[in-house]
Amino acid sequence: MKHVGRPLRRPDDAVHLDGRGGFVADVAFPHQLHMRVVRSPVACAKLVGVDTEPAYALPGVVAVLTADDVAHVPPIGVRLSTGASLERFLQPVLAATMVRYVGEPVAVVLADTPAVAEDAAELIGLELTPLEPQLTPTDSDVSASDPLRGNEAATVFKAFGNLNTAFHRAERIVEVDLAWGRDGAMPLETRGLVARWDGASETLEIWGAGRAAHWNRDVIAEVLDLPRSAVVWHTTDVGGSFGVKGELYPEDMLVAYAARLLGRPVRWIEDRREHLLAANQARDIAASARAAVDSSGLILGVDLIFTVDQGAYVRTEGTMVADLIAAMTPGPYALGAYRARGHLKLTNKTPAGSFRGAGRAEAAFIRERLMDAVAHRTGIDPMELRRRNLIDPSEMPADRGMETLGSAVTYDSGRYQSLVDATTRRFSLDVVRRRAQHRRAQGELVGVGAAFVVDAAAPAGYEHVKLSVDRRGTVDVITAAAEQGQGIRTLLAQIVADIVGVDYRRVRVTAGDTVQIPFSAGTLLSRSSAMVGTAAQHAAEALREKILAAAAAMLSVPADKLTIQGGRIRQADRHFGAILDLGELAAALEPGPSQRVPHGFALDADGSVTTAMTTFPYGLHVAVVEIDRDTGLVSVPSVYVGYDVGNAINPGLVEAQLVGGVVQGIASALHTALGVTGTGDPLRANLADYAMPTAREAPGVEVLLIEEAPSPANTLGIKGAGDAGLTGMAPAIAAAVDDALGVVGFARQLPVTAADVMRELKARVPLPLALVGAA
Amino acid sequence: MKHVGRPLRRPDDAVHLDGRGGFVADVAFPHQLHMRVVRSPVACAKLVGVDTEPAYALPGVVAVLTADDVAHVPPIGVRLSTGASLERFLQPVLAATMVRYVGEPVAVVLADTPAVAEDAAELIGLELTPLEPQLTPTDSDVSASDPLRGNEAATVFKAFGNLNTAFHRAERIVEVDLAWGRDGAMPLETRGLVARWDGASETLEIWGAGRAAHWNRDVIAEVLDLPRSAVVWHTTDVGGSFGVKGELYPEDMLVAYAARLLGRPVRWIEDRREHLLAANQARDIAASARAAVDSSGLILGVDLIFTVDQGAYVRTEGTMVADLIAAMTPGPYALGAYRARGHLKLTNKTPAGSFRGAGRAEAAFIRERLMDAVAHRTGIDPMELRRRNLIDPSEMPADRGMETLGSAVTYDSGRYQSLVDATTRRFSLDVVRRRAQHRRAQGELVGVGAAFVVDAAAPAGYEHVKLSVDRRGTVDVITAAAEQGQGIRTLLAQIVADIVGVDYRRVRVTAGDTVQIPFSAGTLLSRSSAMVGTAAQHAAEALREKILAAAAAMLSVPADKLTIQGGRIRQADRHFGAILDLGELAAALEPGPSQRVPHGFALDADGSVTTAMTTFPYGLHVAVVEIDRDTGLVSVPSVYVGYDVGNAINPGLVEAQLVGGVVQGIASALHTALGVTGTGDPLRANLADYAMPTAREAPGVEVLLIEEAPSPANTLGIKGAGDAGLTGMAPAIAAAVDDALGVVGFARQLPVTAADVMRELKARVPLPLALVGAA
Repeated sequence: MKHVGRPLRRPDDAVHLDGRGGFVADVAFPHQLHMRVVRSPVACAKLVGVDTEPAYALPGVVAVLTADDVAHVPPIGVRLSTGASLERFLQPVLAATMVRYVGEPVAVVLADTPAVAEDAAELIGLELTPLEPQLTPTDSDVSASDPLRGNEAATVFKAFGNLNTAFHRAERIVEVDLAWGRDGAMPLETRGLVARWDGASETLEIWGAGRAAHWNRDVIAEVLDLPRSAVVWHTTDVGGSFGVKGELYPEDMLVAYAARLLGRPVRWIEDRREHLLAANQARDIAASARAAVDSSGLILGVDLIFTVDQGAYVRTEGTMVADLIAAMTPGPYALGAYRARGHLKLTNKTPAGSFRGAGRAEAAFIRERLMDAVAHRTGIDPMELRRRNLIDPSEMPADRGMETLGSAVTYDSGRYQSLVDATTRRFSLDVVRRRAQHRRAQGELVGVGAAFVVDAAAPAGYEHVKLSVDRRGTVDVITAAAEQGQGIRTLLAQIVADIVGVDYRRVRVTAGDTVQIPFSAGTLLSRSSAMVGTAAQHAAEALREKILAAAAAMLSVPADKLTIQGGRIRQADRHFGAILDLGELAAALEPGPSQRVPHGFALDADGSVTTAMTTFPYGLHVAVVEIDRDTGLVSVPSVYVGYDVGNAINPGLVEAQLVGGVVQGIASALHTALGVTGTGDPLRANLADYAMPTAREAPGVEVLLIEEAPSPANTLGIKGAGDAGLTGMAPAIAAAVDDALGVVGFARQLPVTAADVMRELKARVPLPLALVGAA
Repeated sequence: MKHVGRPLRRPDDAVHLDGRGGFVADVAFPHQLHMRVVRSPVACAKLVGVDTEPAYALPGVVAVLTADDVAHVPPIGVRLSTGASLERFLQPVLAATMVRYVGEPVAVVLADTPAVAEDAAELIGLELTPLEPQLTPTDSDVSASDPLRGNEAATVFKAFGNLNTAFHRAERIVEVDLAWGRDGAMPLETRGLVARWDGASETLEIWGAGRAAHWNRDVIAEVLDLPRSAVVWHTTDVGGSFGVKGELYPEDMLVAYAARLLGRPVRWIEDRREHLLAANQARDIAASARAAVDSSGLILGVDLIFTVDQGAYVRTEGTMVADLIAAMTPGPYALGAYRARGHLKLTNKTPAGSFRGAGRAEAAFIRERLMDAVAHRTGIDPMELRRRNLIDPSEMPADRGMETLGSAVTYDSGRYQSLVDATTRRFSLDVVRRRAQHRRAQGELVGVGAAFVVDAAAPAGYEHVKLSVDRRGTVDVITAAAEQGQGIRTLLAQIVADIVGVDYRRVRVTAGDTVQIPFSAGTLLSRSSAMVGTAAQHAAEALREKILAAAAAMLSVPADKLTIQGGRIRQADRHFGAILDLGELAAALEPGPSQRVPHGFALDADGSVTTAMTTFPYGLHVAVVEIDRDTGLVSVPSVYVGYDVGNAINPGLVEAQLVGGVVQGIASALHTALGVTGTGDPLRANLADYAMPTAREAPGVEVLLIEEAPSPANTLGIKGAGDAGLTGMAPAIAAAVDDALGVVGFARQLPVTAADVMRELKARVPLPLALVGAA
């Protein structure tokens, strides 16, 4: 039976359920040093001096590094460049003359135990001259506190069509003003890195998350003036990545630098407070969008202005989030004209980066809130309005005349109307809406909202996979893809198993180090199944061909008469006859003078893939919300998602991605944001204050996987599902809240808090229920 | 300037001089267990019981394993099979019912510290019923003490020509009876292994010597029922290998097994006493050789019978040593007929294996002692006699009609007479001999002896090398070759540097693990420079071609107009014009959609080599000895070696091999043997009793490297030099001792001890010196 398309279990679940997972905190070496970061306690100040003497007095402290010690270490650059010059806004690995956010690294202590390191860090004296922090984006070019930098790091501009004509022709113009507060990914496992200098081989070995291992390796090698091969990155298991883990942070560079400098293993495991202060944060946008609409509800053009509050510095992802917001706001709709102007603003807050759904979630929020406003203003049913504006399948591939993520925004494939129809049918969405209407009529605050999303996934890049077969018939897969819980090992095993003709549990997938797989664009942007999966497919096809040719030589049977089933090669048209075990064949092909079948060296094969195209998975999210009239609390009992991933290698895992994304989307839409006080101090620096959704808040999620529009970008037709689920939740919930409250445009700011809702409810003239019923 | 052929320094010397070498004892992990082996205190006994209880009482003891615990672990098999069935003679990983030598592993303790492990091991009670040990090889088929096994493990038979006719036609028959006592290699670093089970990746990682890493991996994977890729062998630095280190011993298997069983890292570092009791020993042969000689001193035939005292068990090398003795005794001489019958005898001594020069040193001793006897009996000068019998270059390649090491004994190339001439000339050997004669005439006991040797090297096998270039222009070489101090990294860097056109210090050579290079026949039998060097040559040629083709595309200049010098690519016929740095080119070829030159993926290349031929390096050894009349001590003030290695990539390193071999050969010829008492207890179990040569005993060694006969077995013409230097020392010293004492055939038994010499001197009628002078 084929493996691809079946919701098979992950064979490596047992490892994690048994507590055997190999996370970065599980890596340890004798004589290792523990690194503790001394962080700025204020949001903006001149850094006058750092007194490290008291720390050295503590037994067990080996070294304290300040900016002076790393003066020749440059700031970490931008991985995803969009051409903007961002040098001036990059974060120094340790603050030198100014601190610009609460949590900014100022010094690191390296000590024999974590406790000593932590105690010593508290003894270090920071001499600071506080300055007025900039806590919200400002249009002012001049910064009194930070005269060297100004307040804006970059602008983003994208456009197509004639916007003037569109607005000129419009029957009506609809405008929305929106904002989404700060959020951040909270993986179960915080950040961390272990580095060990091997003096014998003159190699720096690093253990950590594999999101961007190869780029990180290159940067570290350059900074430490080492050959590329002298930095080896070993990808560890990851307890949730979500875009935040595995980027190269100043702390990571300090771990690598200290390990090389001191010749002892260095280990840094972040605590939760540090994670909330210093890991990349996200969202924090404000947007103003105007739509030009004709008499039939067709959107002629959209004009968008937005700001992204980047925080204190630009990190590895540069302007990517802003760029994606600009590129993806048009979404599935066939607008004739579009203009987006985005501003990347600097403030004295934690730097921002990507968080699952980066840019696309913000774009969906802007676009779908705008669509709801248009629906309200035109009186057209919101779903009908969307349907009218969706790009027709005949337009595919649809070139949007823009670029992002290094290539054209050309939707690869899509049957948008069909997905709306199928999802509506499957979940009887009309019934869902009628039922909510009925309950509202009964006085309950219940609403339904929908959002159509287009994700961007698997952008331009490269991947390479190596296969080999051993004497037991085990098929080994070495890949750069990092297992982050998404199940990439299982997907690859399924793809390879079908092509090679073995059970998927005989396929052993290893996340290779950076020597084994020297080039990879990383495990990010929903790219692994599409890119690594395709490379694995190509490798498996080459391996199959080699197997059949070699077996043909051994069995003296033409290759095209042979087949492979259950790890055995036999004649396709016979039930009896010669049978060769895959392991036997592998043994016969082992290289050497006694190689029995002279067919290349060993039973192995490589596969690679290079693409310049991006894939565009899409889906419809429908959320049902209930509001507690007494507390204002919004809950989400049900979510329905129809989603087209092109080809679902393992529907169980795709569904898991979607469900996880939905829950994470609820957090962003409804739970508390990562705000700051008037002095720039974080309001929420622990998980008691920063409320994450628990099982109690998780809705029933129903998923319809659709495979109507396989992607032409890769031979498997995969579109990618890593960001799926989250992208559409914010606008769907916002629309549902509007619906529940009967106030279109109420949910203009995320998160929608209970306090906001209570303000709205209290502002209403309270009507007795009996009267409402009688009206 | 070219690198090949120059005595360049090893770039990795600094690592070792600074104490940064990465030896197995430098590998450690948190929570590791230390393994201590409980060894048999007697040479032969029934093992009635093992009481482990007292050991468990010691805090820190985690486990004690006895034969019962490893009942399903089979004995380690034979790597170098010659067809003989040796199953019954293999060593169990732990003794079950009998112990058969002092030092045999009976149990292992695994504890938190080495001290606890050692203390606990001493508490373990062995219930033994002593039996009469067999301490010398016997012809009796029946063994009273060991009825299940008999006394002989295997026989070896090789022959060519008509021996009866040869002896029938002979003018005289010359016979010698010879013996060589037990010896053993004493590397600076004892044996050791570290194994760590990684539960997350379900992989057993092993750190240890890389002599036969791939075979060891395969055996361990099979025993532990794991896929091949689930056992990864990391080759550590080695403090001298000499054939004894890196073979798979019972102790190694126990380390691997315990690490898997207990899920904790296990570390075993042998102490010197264990090394002297339990590591493979060597030599310990007795031989009777008869030569049929015609009137002109031509050897018509040789009939050889010999025994090898294998000790208690057959280990990984099976019958290799005996096989090589049989195959290599004819050496450089054009005998018409030959027969060798060898017996691998079992005794209650430490098992034997290979030691540098394995089989070839014994063969040289037998052959060259026989030649000296023939010279004496025919009255022909020993060197003249040898010269007459040498194979003529016109006979090359010379098929000897035998097989060994898996392929034909066909001498690849050789100009033997020419080497004798060149060596004689260079070192004025006639003067050396006359001077000794003169000194003898003055009453000194001074002698000169010579031996001509043919080694066998780089037998049938396979190697693979991977190259890549990074953005700095560093050329990376990944190979399975283990650095054992021989300088293989430097040799490979030289070969690659010349072909690619970079300085050899820009070439970074890494001993890859068994995942990076999945197949290799190991670092043994003088094969690395010939095999890995050739694979590196092929890889470098492929890389050069790729560089030129890609550069041609980038520079728009035909590839054949380009050259590479000092890491820069430029037009060969111009001093000015476009120049491209190798690193720049590598960057341009990095894979991905932005790859600037569409020429394959990345700037890398592979090379491999498979051979079914063996190489046969050869040389002339001349030793000068002086005997102290009062103590009988033999010293070796001078040694002269002329040696043809085909192609000396780095003459400095070849010379170092030869000098090291010479000193090691002196130890074997003159220093104390690893004898046992009448109960089978080792006479020498520490380095005070077992006297190794020191700098004081090291002679002045003069080396003439000859490259007259490049090997046709590989494209570099390399013959290999890893065993060189040692092979001829025993017969050269024996002949010199005879010469000094004026007693041809005195040195029939090695080592020649001071006691032997004193007995001889005392047996003579003491003549006053004045009388001798007057005679």
